[in-house]
Amino acid sequence: MASNGSLSFENELFSKFAFYAAIVLLKTLVMSVWTARHRIPRRVFPAPEDYTFFNAKSPTATIAFDAQVERIRRCHLNDIENVIPFILIGLFYVLTGPDVNTAVLLFRVFAGARILHTLVYLNGIGQPFRAIIWSAGYGVCIFMTIVVIKAGSY
Amino acid sequence: MASNGSLSFENELFSKFAFYAAIVLLKTLVMSVWTARHRIPRRVFPAPEDYTFFNAKSPTATIAFDAQVERIRRCHLNDIENVIPFILIGLFYVLTGPDVNTAVLLFRVFAGARILHTLVYLNGIGQPFRAIIWSAGYGVCIFMTIVVIKAGSY
Amino acid sequence: MASNGSLSFENELFSKFAFYAAIVLLKTLVMSVWTARHRIPRRVFPAPEDYTFFNAKSPTATIAFDAQVERIRRCHLNDIENVIPFILIGLFYVLTGPDVNTAVLLFRVFAGARILHTLVYLNGIGQPFRAIIWSAGYGVCIFMTIVVIKAGSY
Repeated sequence: MASNGSLSFENELFSKFAFYAAIVLLKTLVMSVWTARHRIPRRVFPAPEDYTFFNAKSPTATIAFDAQVERIRRCHLNDIENVIPFILIGLFYVLTGPDVNTAVLLFRVFAGARILHTLVYLNGIGQPFRAIIWSAGYGVCIFMTIVVIKAGSY
Repeated sequence: MASNGSLSFENELFSKFAFYAAIVLLKTLVMSVWTARHRIPRRVFPAPEDYTFFNAKSPTATIAFDAQVERIRRCHLNDIENVIPFILIGLFYVLTGPDVNTAVLLFRVFAGARILHTLVYLNGIGQPFRAIIWSAGYGVCIFMTIVVIKAGSY
Repeated sequence: MASNGSLSFENELFSKFAFYAAIVLLKTLVMSVWTARHRIPRRVFPAPEDYTFFNAKSPTATIAFDAQVERIRRCHLNDIENVIPFILIGLFYVLTGPDVNTAVLLFRVFAGARILHTLVYLNGIGQPFRAIIWSAGYGVCIFMTIVVIKAGSY
């Protein structure tokens, strides 16, 4: 595999990055539907008009909590905090002319870690597994960020 | 209209994408000010030092809720979860060499859906309108993501 | 300093943008670890399995709050709402062919404002300092967004 250092699908490295970026973004997007799918049977909605529509009893407090819905939402927020930085910094990282094999390995580790992280989080698998898996994805982001800072500081 | 497949304003497709991306991002940014504008008359602030500054009585609980402020914040978070993925995946999508008319139509549907979604959400217009409008924007993101995954998987 | 209008590290303007974008993204990423670092001694965790692992008493309510942890999380969310839009719009802004000195000044103001904002927020320094500093970063984003809308509307 080779990189011509441009943002284009003719650049094999960019093409691989686009693939993994889209995979993790798709996973992030699916969290929205996953939240909704659990809100409906559990009758926990974000707005009063939702209670009206589903003919559900509105809670007395302003906001209702359901442990499983909140778990999915935290997992979604964790994606926002990790997947979006990955895609942003990855765009810059691809342009720093990294070793192609190292770069693709990083993208794979990140994508794998995020998919595992979701499975572990949603199923409430005990710690320290979630923390360890999260760290793998986080480490990839931090590494790429430092490479970009170095590349941009000349 | 034509596309030369590059990330540059000389590429008409990129230029259109930049326009709609900036419009929806501006809408997202405005949510911050909109939240603040409702916090002040309703005396509901995020930090204790804000209560001191506005000479307002601090709530006994750590966090105070106000239905309208929370509504705007949820709408803002919904933007973060949808508008940012749209801009990220759109950058890749523009490079996949899509049919230009289809692509511009998708950008318009997304921008229109997000503006309508905000109006419907902030005014508490009954369901299923919010869900239908949200789906239009979501569908655009999912479609573009799948096109990028395909383009990157060769 | 000069700009050749491309997204490449050979473009001095892009290189500067990459540098400041990576700095503010690094700061945003660090917030995750900062939250965890405060969760552990305060025994306030996001999921029941975390309580089990740390041998901590689970709260009776579904969600536990701790003023300092919530402060760091709000600061993190504020970064998500501001730093990510800055990087996204900056990518387009660099391509509009801005005056290079103005552009670099904007990147520096944004980066400085976000670092100061974090220090002021985490230490609970009284208002209106946090609002003023936040406005500086916000103003940079709004200005760049308007330049991009103009560039894309031809």
